[in-house]
Amino acid sequence: MTDLKIRDIGEKGLLQRLQRYCPADIIGDDAAVMPTQPGQALVVTTDVLVDGVHFSDRTTSPQDVGWRSAAANLSDLAAMGATPLAITVGLALPSDVAVDWVEKLYQGMNQCLQQYNTAIVGGDICRSSVTSIAITAFGQVPPQRVIRRNAARVGDAIVITGVHGASRAGLELLLHPELGQNLSNSDRSYLINAHQRPQPRLDVLPLLWKIAGASPRIAGMDSSDGLADAVLQICQMSGVGAHIEQQNIPIPNSLADLSPKKALDYVLYGGEDFELVLCMQPIQAQEFVQKLGNGAAIIGNITATSSVIMSDRTNQNPDEVLNLNRGFQHF
Amino acid sequence: MTDLKIRDIGEKGLLQRLQRYCPADIIGDDAAVMPTQPGQALVVTTDVLVDGVHFSDRTTSPQDVGWRSAAANLSDLAAMGATPLAITVGLALPSDVAVDWVEKLYQGMNQCLQQYNTAIVGGDICRSSVTSIAITAFGQVPPQRVIRRNAARVGDAIVITGVHGASRAGLELLLHPELGQNLSNSDRSYLINAHQRPQPRLDVLPLLWKIAGASPRIAGMDSSDGLADAVLQICQMSGVGAHIEQQNIPIPNSLADLSPKKALDYVLYGGEDFELVLCMQPIQAQEFVQKLGNGAAIIGNITATSSVIMSDRTNQNPDEVLNLNRGFQHF
Repeated sequence: MTDLKIRDIGEKGLLQRLQRYCPADIIGDDAAVMPTQPGQALVVTTDVLVDGVHFSDRTTSPQDVGWRSAAANLSDLAAMGATPLAITVGLALPSDVAVDWVEKLYQGMNQCLQQYNTAIVGGDICRSSVTSIAITAFGQVPPQRVIRRNAARVGDAIVITGVHGASRAGLELLLHPELGQNLSNSDRSYLINAHQRPQPRLDVLPLLWKIAGASPRIAGMDSSDGLADAVLQICQMSGVGAHIEQQNIPIPNSLADLSPKKALDYVLYGGEDFELVLCMQPIQAQEFVQKLGNGAAIIGNITATSSVIMSDRTNQNPDEVLNLNRGFQHF
Repeated sequence: MTDLKIRDIGEKGLLQRLQRYCPADIIGDDAAVMPTQPGQALVVTTDVLVDGVHFSDRTTSPQDVGWRSAAANLSDLAAMGATPLAITVGLALPSDVAVDWVEKLYQGMNQCLQQYNTAIVGGDICRSSVTSIAITAFGQVPPQRVIRRNAARVGDAIVITGVHGASRAGLELLLHPELGQNLSNSDRSYLINAHQRPQPRLDVLPLLWKIAGASPRIAGMDSSDGLADAVLQICQMSGVGAHIEQQNIPIPNSLADLSPKKALDYVLYGGEDFELVLCMQPIQAQEFVQKLGNGAAIIGNITATSSVIMSDRTNQNPDEVLNLNRGFQHF
C-alpha cells in the first residue's frame, strides 16, 4: 500500500512503523540510554535538511535523502577523528507525505549507518507544512586524538582523502541529463552515485592513527562545503595561509569529460563530497596518501602568509587567491 | 535594530550572532567535544517543535518558546534519571524572521539551561518556509539508576512530583484572557507562568537517589503528554494496571476557580506540566513525597489488572477507566 498517507495512520502509527528501524531495546522510554567507552570524549554534531533546499524528489529518492543525511553527519564525526555511536532523527512532515516515503528515508539512513554499526536511537515526528529532517550524531574519540580546524602549522602538508567535485557533477547530471550524453555509462553512474551515496571517510581514521601515533597533531575538517572552503576555514582558524598546487588536485576524467571548463570549479567549490581535508607533517602525509590511494593527494602546504594561493605549475593561469565569496549561503 | 531580518545578515551572520550564546571553546569545528564522567551511560533525547503547532507568537514570546523547548528536553532526561550535559539546536527558518526573534529564542533556552549548568554546544540553521526547532539533549546517568517505563510492579505507589493542569490552564488564559476575570492577579500569573516557564524536575533526582539507594527499582516518565497518559504508558510498558484515587490528585484552587468543570480534565489530560510520574515501593514513596512537598503526592498504586481505574472516594462519580483516546495526536 504505497499510497498510504501519514494522516491515515497518525503520529503513533507512523512511530510504530519507524521503530522497526531502531534497536528493540531502546524503544519506549523518554530517552535512549547507551554505554560509552571509558576515557573517550563525547562528540556531537547536528544538521538540518529542508525539502526544496537540501533535497528534492526530482533528483533524490527518499532512500538517497536518508543515506546522504546520515552520511553528512557521520562525516562531521570523521572530521573530528571520532567513531560514531548513534544518531537521532527529528522529522517535521506534512500530513499528506506518503508513509512509504518516510519508511524509505529510514531505510536509506540505516543502509548508510549499518556500515558503521551505528543505529537510530531516538526521534521525534511532528506535523509541518514542509518536510525537514534534523539529525544529531554522537560519536566518541580519545581526547588526545581530536582533529581540530585550528591546529594547522606552517610547513604542514595539506592532504585530501579522495576525489572532489564528483558529487556536484552528479547533481548537474540529475538536473540536466542531456549534459551527460558524451559520458560512458560507468562515468555517468560514478558521478551520480557520488552525489546520491557519498561515503563518510570514517575508514581513514585507523590508518591515520597508525601513522600519526597516539597523540597526533592533525588539523582538519570535512569538505562538505567544498574543498576551497575547507582549506580556507582551516587557515582562518589556525591563523595561517596556504599554497595549493593546482596540478596536484586530482580531477577525474569523467569530470573533465562532462565539462572541461567547469571541472576545476566543481572540484574547488562543488561541495558535498564528504572527504577529509587534513594538515599534518609532510613525512606523515606522504605515507598516509601512499597507503590510502584512491585519489588521496597532497595538494599543497601551509604557509606563513594570510591568504590561500593556488598556483598553476604550467603557467597557463596566473596565481589565484581563493576566497569564500563563491561558497554557499543558505539565506 | 529589531527589524533586521535573517536575509539581511545571511546564514553566516546569524551563526556569528548565535555563537555568543554558546561556550567559546566549542565553536568553529565540525562537531562539539565534551568530556563525560567514567562509568556513566549516555542518555539522548530529541524533540521537534513547529510554528503554529507547538508554539505561536500569539501566546508565546520567543524567550518562552526557547525556555519551553529546552525544558521539554531536560524533562525527558530527568525522566530517565539523567543529569544534563548539553543540547544541540537545529533551526529551520524563513528568511523574513527577525534576527531579534532568533536571539531571544536562544536567550530563553539559555535562561532555562543555565539553571543546570548546561550549554548549547552545537547547531545548524537553514532556510525553510516554516519555523521549526529541533533540539537534542544529552545527559548521563549511572546505568543502575536509569528510570524506565517498564519497571513498575504490582503494589508500587504512584507518585507525582508536583501540580498538574496548570500549564494547560495557563494556555487557555493566554488564548482567552476573559476566562480569567474572576482570578486574582497572582493566580493568573501562576497559571500563565506554568505554561510559559515550566521547570524540568531535575531537582528531584538527588532526593530520589538518597531515598531509594544506589541501585533503585523505580519506574517512571515525565508527564509532558498529560498525567493520564503517563500512568497509562507506564502500565502498558510494565504489563500492569493501576488504581488512582481522584481525591489524592492535587487540584490547585486557581484551577478550580478558573473552571470547576474542566479542572480535572486539565489535570489528567492537559499535558506539558513536565512533572515526573514515578512508581516505587510505598515506604519510599511516602518519604519522597513528604520531603519533596510542593504538590508532590501519592495518587494511587499499581495493580495486577490490565486497566487504569480512577475512583472517587466521595462516590459522587462512578469509577472511570482512563484511556489514551483523549490524548494528543499530532497528525
